[in-house]
Amino acid sequence: MAKTVIQHILTRLIELGVRDVFGVAGDYAFPINDAVCENSQLRWIGNCNELNAGYAADGYARINGISALVTTFGVGELSTLNAIAGAYAEYLPIFHLVGMPSSKVQKNRKIAHHTLGNGDFNVFYKISQYFSCAHSIITPENCITELERLINSALFERRPVYIGIPSDYAIMPIKISEEFITIAKPQSNHNALTEAITAILNKLSGSKKACVIAGILTARFGLATTVQSIIDKTNLPYATMFMDKSVLSESNPNYMGIYNGQIMNLQISEFIENCDCIMGIGTVFSDFNSGCFTVSIPPENYISIMPDHVKVGSAVYSNVYMEDVLSKLRDLAPSLNHQGLKAQGLGKPIPSHNGSITAEYLYPRLEQMFRADDIIIAETSTVSMGLGFALLPNNAQFHNQTLWGSIGWATPATLGMAIAAPERRIILFTGEGSHQLTAQEISQFARFGLKPIIFVLNNDGYLFERLLCKEPEAYYNDVAQWNYTLLPSALGCKDWYCQKVTSCEELDSAIKIAELKNVASYIEIVTDKYASPEFARKLPYSLNASYSS
Amino acid sequence: MAKTVIQHILTRLIELGVRDVFGVAGDYAFPINDAVCENSQLRWIGNCNELNAGYAADGYARINGISALVTTFGVGELSTLNAIAGAYAEYLPIFHLVGMPSSKVQKNRKIAHHTLGNGDFNVFYKISQYFSCAHSIITPENCITELERLINSALFERRPVYIGIPSDYAIMPIKISEEFITIAKPQSNHNALTEAITAILNKLSGSKKACVIAGILTARFGLATTVQSIIDKTNLPYATMFMDKSVLSESNPNYMGIYNGQIMNLQISEFIENCDCIMGIGTVFSDFNSGCFTVSIPPENYISIMPDHVKVGSAVYSNVYMEDVLSKLRDLAPSLNHQGLKAQGLGKPIPSHNGSITAEYLYPRLEQMFRADDIIIAETSTVSMGLGFALLPNNAQFHNQTLWGSIGWATPATLGMAIAAPERRIILFTGEGSHQLTAQEISQFARFGLKPIIFVLNNDGYLFERLLCKEPEAYYNDVAQWNYTLLPSALGCKDWYCQKVTSCEELDSAIKIAELKNVASYIEIVTDKYASPEFARKLPYSLNASYSS
Repeated sequence: MAKTVIQHILTRLIELGVRDVFGVAGDYAFPINDAVCENSQLRWIGNCNELNAGYAADGYARINGISALVTTFGVGELSTLNAIAGAYAEYLPIFHLVGMPSSKVQKNRKIAHHTLGNGDFNVFYKISQYFSCAHSIITPENCITELERLINSALFERRPVYIGIPSDYAIMPIKISEEFITIAKPQSNHNALTEAITAILNKLSGSKKACVIAGILTARFGLATTVQSIIDKTNLPYATMFMDKSVLSESNPNYMGIYNGQIMNLQISEFIENCDCIMGIGTVFSDFNSGCFTVSIPPENYISIMPDHVKVGSAVYSNVYMEDVLSKLRDLAPSLNHQGLKAQGLGKPIPSHNGSITAEYLYPRLEQMFRADDIIIAETSTVSMGLGFALLPNNAQFHNQTLWGSIGWATPATLGMAIAAPERRIILFTGEGSHQLTAQEISQFARFGLKPIIFVLNNDGYLFERLLCKEPEAYYNDVAQWNYTLLPSALGCKDWYCQKVTSCEELDSAIKIAELKNVASYIEIVTDKYASPEFARKLPYSLNASYSS
Repeated sequence: MAKTVIQHILTRLIELGVRDVFGVAGDYAFPINDAVCENSQLRWIGNCNELNAGYAADGYARINGISALVTTFGVGELSTLNAIAGAYAEYLPIFHLVGMPSSKVQKNRKIAHHTLGNGDFNVFYKISQYFSCAHSIITPENCITELERLINSALFERRPVYIGIPSDYAIMPIKISEEFITIAKPQSNHNALTEAITAILNKLSGSKKACVIAGILTARFGLATTVQSIIDKTNLPYATMFMDKSVLSESNPNYMGIYNGQIMNLQISEFIENCDCIMGIGTVFSDFNSGCFTVSIPPENYISIMPDHVKVGSAVYSNVYMEDVLSKLRDLAPSLNHQGLKAQGLGKPIPSHNGSITAEYLYPRLEQMFRADDIIIAETSTVSMGLGFALLPNNAQFHNQTLWGSIGWATPATLGMAIAAPERRIILFTGEGSHQLTAQEISQFARFGLKPIIFVLNNDGYLFERLLCKEPEAYYNDVAQWNYTLLPSALGCKDWYCQKVTSCEELDSAIKIAELKNVASYIEIVTDKYASPEFARKLPYSLNASYSS
């Protein structure tokens, strides 16, 4: 018997590697929810709310490559929209399945719940199109071909796709066409590819001092290993920028550190900006990623390899795809002999005079705890600005939402990563202001037997906003005072190690206990209101300048 | 000196009655945040997240008529979009101020944080247009006239408006035009109005048995008092539907109860459907509001008075406005002598044999506690289905989000209502599944010194979904198990009365204590998984039928 529409969709997602499905159940989505729960190869991860579900799917896709999310019509899909937009901005393919009212209800334009009451059932589908690389409303007739189109877009463009499924169609058998239509991946233009590769190789070979900037898109497009091979072959020194941290190993001798324009690590900036050949691979020059536009690379010295084009100096090569370019480079790149800089970590933790936890103690101390293969998640704002410059052991991953920068992202995204990689150690570091947006999601770690180490930095408000705004003490920078260490217990997390620390000694001890115990940990770190890492102190000047230019 | 753009906007909102501004601060919104905090007539209510802020603004508008909400660009406005869409569906005017990047950043198409990274700064503005009755991006030049246009739309259409304010423009002086342009409210067409009134009066006078259905829009358009005057003058019996509960007093002798088609209160349905003249005023026949489309009123007997048109039998009168129609009716309506039905409450609470809390005890017991002037908020799902049929004392208000039905709405909306009416007793009743979406917002009650009575019904999952779906025990209907009575303390609520009750006796005692204490109360009510009120048990059949028709 033919599969139903939803059975077919789930089968294809399983084939692509989806094992867990995030979301919140709802009546229009019941046929999807049912099919997920009935499928032995899938696990339903019911989140506390849809925004959290979207963030969790974002986190899962960072580890697993792709993810799946189910929400109900209107209310559910709108609640998760911010997470989807973030996944769009940051190139994460989420298959977003939306349970829609039945085709009959839609055709009859009924005033149904979760609608605007005006008979318009297309409005949410229309707005989803701004935040997905492909989108469709599925019927039994179009299911096979449309789904393949959506899958191809998601895999090729690495961005969310929207799959609207009317509830009656979901459980109808798919109409099987004679020929199973496969959609070919776009191919690079042969001539353009050859010319681009020649131009890159010429530039590299003629260079006296060259380096690589490895960007986030190499990881998003599954090409980090290829880039590492190119590094290994060419022996080129490399840096990453803030958003790109850990896309290549930071323990490799060719790694120099984080390039941050004129704000941080000036010796790295000087090195890079004085190269006569800088090869940026999948690098996005956004404000936070470029030291607020203070990077200064002469265009004539710059090679840019992006998902669908290459630029060498002023020459643009279109319709050449990163995968093809990097494969060729791996095969053809010469062995070179350029010396880079040695990457520096944060150094030893410096205890304060009065024992209070300063940024100068905190971030170096956290750096010390990181181990190979850790997955480290840093929320937007001062915590990521402090951890972003730590030097990580081999294969440790660092995740941050640098471009979209939606506070609250980190806690549920950590859940998604923990679900995707239960065998790895997961460390979340979030400010308390950001944590408040989505904190209820920590209840799910307990529900699914996960054991993260969670640090909540309590500095009495939105610290980076204090540093950035006109009046640091403005009331809008304050947040409600919570008793954080009670929270896991209130949210049903049993036997967690919960500790509030206010001194370096307590922090040190808590980290040691968390590392030893085989339970989840939740550590509230209390610091002075203005204890901030160097980057957070230096950034506001440049950021404010960028607002008016 | 001329006011700045944001000072002018806030001054006008204050003139309209805004005293509190909800939102989450963010860098692009700093000029707005600053101006709110600097204005002694305004209070900044910093919410835990933007969705909660939007729901709080929804609640505030229900009490205060209008409300104001501030979010930052992209991330903030998308997070609150579900709340804005709900306010659009349910006719609540929220002035949504969005802090945008500076005009220069926008013109230069910079890859700035909180953007999709594609240089498109208009995408969020474009999608907001589906969920607002008017929208504008404000400049110093257009500020005065555009703001008046937005205000007029909000007040006349009773729906959200979107006010985008680039951060540099926000603090520039407004350009004052010579003549202050006022925009006249639309006027009813004189002839159409006269004819409509004549038709209504003829229908009423010729009727043998007549009644009124008072709809939610009478309250939303500020016309409930006028409708009450018409009732008083004509002596017509009246009912409301579910969404409309308490728009007119339920203690008035002319009140008959909730009209719910063929599902509940069949004697009321029989009465109404046998009238030869039924006057619906601002009544929306949505699924949950109409007993899932089981109301059956012969069109020839129906008078519909809606915001911008009147229908009498088959005759439609366009361009006649509810306010004008009701004013005329108040002046011209005859005194009639139609006998209605006496409204019935839920009766006495029936204790269970084993002491466990059943729906038959719970809802009648809650009905007993309601006092005149209470504001009662019932979350979507079984709790509202139980409380919706309680009979309320004079001037008690009942709030539910019947059409949009976004679970999670009730907790932050209650905050907004408590902020708007600190002198009134506020009672929230929410299911625990819904509460989990937005529960962190209870920390704000403590922060602002408010003392609500909060009931959290813990029935181990999404009960109404269990009743509605194919397999009640499906895993997706489960939620994480929280320790609810620890939650207020974890969220910083000091000295709250927190109690978990599992028997009728404990419930009774907890209610009495909550009523006596001058503190906020948070009571977890544990019931059997399937303890459900009559409406929740009967509705699924009709609702499922409506999905396929």
